[in-house]
Amino acid sequence: MTKHFWTDDVSALLRVGPDFDLRRVDPSSTPGTAADKRAGATELAASAQELRGLQEKLFAQSRLGAEDRLLVVLQAMDAAGKGGIVNHVFAQLEPYGLALTAFKSPTPEERTHDFLWRVEPRVPGPGVIGLFDRSHYEDVLIQRVRAFAPPEEIERRYGAIVDFERRIADAGVRVVKIMLHISPEEQAARLLSRLDDPEKYWKYNPGDVDERLLWPDYMDAFGIAIERTNVEHAPWYVVPANAKWYARAAVQRIVISELHRMAPEWPQPDFDVAVERARIEDSIDLRWPA
Amino acid sequence: MTKHFWTDDVSALLRVGPDFDLRRVDPSSTPGTAADKRAGATELAASAQELRGLQEKLFAQSRLGAEDRLLVVLQAMDAAGKGGIVNHVFAQLEPYGLALTAFKSPTPEERTHDFLWRVEPRVPGPGVIGLFDRSHYEDVLIQRVRAFAPPEEIERRYGAIVDFERRIADAGVRVVKIMLHISPEEQAARLLSRLDDPEKYWKYNPGDVDERLLWPDYMDAFGIAIERTNVEHAPWYVVPANAKWYARAAVQRIVISELHRMAPEWPQPDFDVAVERARIEDSIDLRWPA
Repeated sequence: MTKHFWTDDVSALLRVGPDFDLRRVDPSSTPGTAADKRAGATELAASAQELRGLQEKLFAQSRLGAEDRLLVVLQAMDAAGKGGIVNHVFAQLEPYGLALTAFKSPTPEERTHDFLWRVEPRVPGPGVIGLFDRSHYEDVLIQRVRAFAPPEEIERRYGAIVDFERRIADAGVRVVKIMLHISPEEQAARLLSRLDDPEKYWKYNPGDVDERLLWPDYMDAFGIAIERTNVEHAPWYVVPANAKWYARAAVQRIVISELHRMAPEWPQPDFDVAVERARIEDSIDLRWPA
Repeated sequence: MTKHFWTDDVSALLRVGPDFDLRRVDPSSTPGTAADKRAGATELAASAQELRGLQEKLFAQSRLGAEDRLLVVLQAMDAAGKGGIVNHVFAQLEPYGLALTAFKSPTPEERTHDFLWRVEPRVPGPGVIGLFDRSHYEDVLIQRVRAFAPPEEIERRYGAIVDFERRIADAGVRVVKIMLHISPEEQAARLLSRLDDPEKYWKYNPGDVDERLLWPDYMDAFGIAIERTNVEHAPWYVVPANAKWYARAAVQRIVISELHRMAPEWPQPDFDVAVERARIEDSIDLRWPA
């Protein structure tokens, strides 16, 4: 952690509490720090080693039987910076211990199943940090706003999500859910910037504007989803994201805090070190035929 | 590319040609460069942007229908540096466009199927760089050395691999196979170093020494596998790997060369830029109820 970057425990500040109200979160705020963009980049790099060290221990201990693993769910309006979080925070992790799933609109086959059918196989294995770019929460966000499912089915899903997340938590998965929160003005600026640069056209989807026009409905849906599924075994964090540097540093610190909480340890060897050393040393002078 | 790091086209130098003989490759050599460890790290970082830029274009064009994708197969004796290649070369890529599969000993279910059954689902989708840490080549390496399958079955597999790789090449997959080549002396030193550091115990597997004692058989099996499966549509590269800095810089340059060969292009938009700009601008002054 860069000295003085965080003036407070950002993880505690952004964790959704009992009196949470999404309307009171200012997307331009930077809770827990008085730093700026330049300091944010420095903090990201300075904490990378701490993040990687925790990941390596988590992965290492799984090789000898520990079952702990972390699942980070990212949800946000379009252009809120999920991609940047993946490419600037999670890209710092070793690929062996990272499992990214970008959920798209359900396929025809997926639609014939319960909404959690496609999610279950993407739950990370022991030692792995799973990362969901969108998730089962789309099934109570766009599906609610667009009425793709009837109200009683949406209602059922909140409970189904809580049960699902409890079940995987019982199997060793720490579930952490993060909403990146931008303002509609910031979204407009970011969408326009994609149209200013031919190298960014591919990131632009006209459908994003259709969803944008339903902004208040989405904020309602987010607020309800967070309230209904914010449980001790699978907490929500809401990260103000108008400032990209802040959102990245904050998400990195949240992940680091959650990993510290899991307290991974280097595993004990399941072999005799002296015996193995002798076996290797005995083999050094072997003269194999050329 | 760092100026003067490569004195020659390393990709061409390391690509297996018709008269290839594995016994003539010196694992301590550094073909194509006269540089040293320090320069190697600099080259890796200096070429990272070129690598990422190519990957991003490859990924971007797939969003609008291009089918090209790259599959890199890594094979080597234990401790030859596959993990380092993944963590230092491929970790520089954006996670969205990288799909890593670390193949382990086949499970009981996998054993009941043809050896390619578990490989097919791991072939990367359009725009993605697939990375195999071990692969279907284990089925003609350890399986040959250990006689886990009868000779006629091993023989069948060489042809099956060539056919399989041709089929996926026809579907848009550029297949590139890389052997990291170390000496047995270097392997012994690396295995011993894992026993010197309790934080590395988890990387040590006593079984690695069992395989080590069969070194000449493995070199024979590698030589035969390379000879039988080195085809235009799926070439082999053999990278001297006693010097980690060299192997990493060389693999990075091979991947960059292969990506240049695929010549990805920023895709044309499938929407009207002016229309979309107007739609966003019209939405900026919307006053949604708080």
